[in-house]
Amino acid sequence: MTHSFPLRVYYEDTDLAGIVYYANYLKFIERGRSEWVRSLGVDQGRLRRELGIVFAVRRIEADFLRPARFDDELTVTTRPATATGARILLEQEVLRAGERLFAAQVTLVCLTDGGAPARIPADIRQRLMPALH
Amino acid sequence: MTHSFPLRVYYEDTDLAGIVYYANYLKFIERGRSEWVRSLGVDQGRLRRELGIVFAVRRIEADFLRPARFDDELTVTTRPATATGARILLEQEVLRAGERLFAAQVTLVCLTDGGAPARIPADIRQRLMPALH
Amino acid sequence: MTHSFPLRVYYEDTDLAGIVYYANYLKFIERGRSEWVRSLGVDQGRLRRELGIVFAVRRIEADFLRPARFDDELTVTTRPATATGARILLEQEVLRAGERLFAAQVTLVCLTDGGAPARIPADIRQRLMPALH
Amino acid sequence: MTHSFPLRVYYEDTDLAGIVYYANYLKFIERGRSEWVRSLGVDQGRLRRELGIVFAVRRIEADFLRPARFDDELTVTTRPATATGARILLEQEVLRAGERLFAAQVTLVCLTDGGAPARIPADIRQRLMPALH
Repeated sequence: MTHSFPLRVYYEDTDLAGIVYYANYLKFIERGRSEWVRSLGVDQGRLRRELGIVFAVRRIEADFLRPARFDDELTVTTRPATATGARILLEQEVLRAGERLFAAQVTLVCLTDGGAPARIPADIRQRLMPALH
Repeated sequence: MTHSFPLRVYYEDTDLAGIVYYANYLKFIERGRSEWVRSLGVDQGRLRRELGIVFAVRRIEADFLRPARFDDELTVTTRPATATGARILLEQEVLRAGERLFAAQVTLVCLTDGGAPARIPADIRQRLMPALH
Repeated sequence: MTHSFPLRVYYEDTDLAGIVYYANYLKFIERGRSEWVRSLGVDQGRLRRELGIVFAVRRIEADFLRPARFDDELTVTTRPATATGARILLEQEVLRAGERLFAAQVTLVCLTDGGAPARIPADIRQRLMPALH
Repeated sequence: MTHSFPLRVYYEDTDLAGIVYYANYLKFIERGRSEWVRSLGVDQGRLRRELGIVFAVRRIEADFLRPARFDDELTVTTRPATATGARILLEQEVLRAGERLFAAQVTLVCLTDGGAPARIPADIRQRLMPALH
């Protein structure tokens, strides 16, 4: 149920404090979400083109626990927690050798191209949240 | 008590959805915090070099309310809420023509160069949080 | 004939070497180009929506001369050099207190939405390159 | 002699034109250089800590040939071309399914921590440029 995605820290990710710049953890977990969705056979580009829907982050609660550094090999984990008709709550973490560096609760909403709330199509919801079906 | 900082949305800030990429709001509010601190006569570089302390974001709760777009003129507001010996809680928002697009509660901690928690020096705390003194 | 645009270096711009990350100079000069175009009364959004054309960078030759640092106040200068039917060559620099830190020759091309080369509309060309008319 | 490094295009890499933002190709090739150096057994962190030297980009000539898009699987290639005492010239490309999207000539210089030019240590030079020895 938990998806894992590996990544490496490069120069672009660091700041003058010698550690990963705080906003970049949001990039890391977005990569994790993209790979999680892909691994379930959901094509975000096709959702947008064919159904006119996108997933957007509506809320995030994030704890910055320990700093990641240049050259670190990190793992992003993604675990679906709950879902309603138009929302999905995910638990995401960034780990280094099993140690939690960053943890977030991410609320995704399903939107039309125009930005209005939309119901998550039932088959997509079932792919993303199999345990709830 | 509320500090305001203007910024413009450039190409670099947008993504293929035609709106500001979600992680970039964290860049925007970090610029706001840097200008807020500067406006109070606190020099982050000197704190680091002379006192060996830095402020780091420990936690963030953020709501993405409406999308910002290319060329938008935005305002970042920063308002100190509470402070303890080693922590400061800030309320930050990103507005467009008075409309809230993004709102966050940001917990800052004071750390030594080595990453250990440190007390915020009294004079710095008083500059950042005058209403509490 | 030379457009100037001021900017400040924030945490997001730096890397672990304590200086501005090299790719970020390309962000800085893109902000400078956006403000230069705006200052001439050209609206990039309208060009895209109404005429279906965009300007894209086709080539860049860039010299990284001296490092910029956190908190630096920089100036981006933009000067049109030459133009042909579908191309514009710009000279851009990043300066700190008059000292050149970065210098680039940037070749812009005019493209249709589909990515095909397009002639620059005569009135736009005249606004961008008045000295050539 | 040519090092290859695969990467995926994520949301963070794109802009409102629906393609990879031009500055991000410089991030991509920097990741390629980091992996190339690592593959040769050279540890950038140790060079900095033990020998007090870093490699910095001094000049880049870059052609943006075709746009990369969201979800694209790209390859970054890195090939050392020539080296002198303190400089290395690299040829780097970004490819999609064998098609060149981006090509650059990158001049690296060896610097001391203080930013002064330094000779590349002979053993490092031999690792990076074996064909020249």
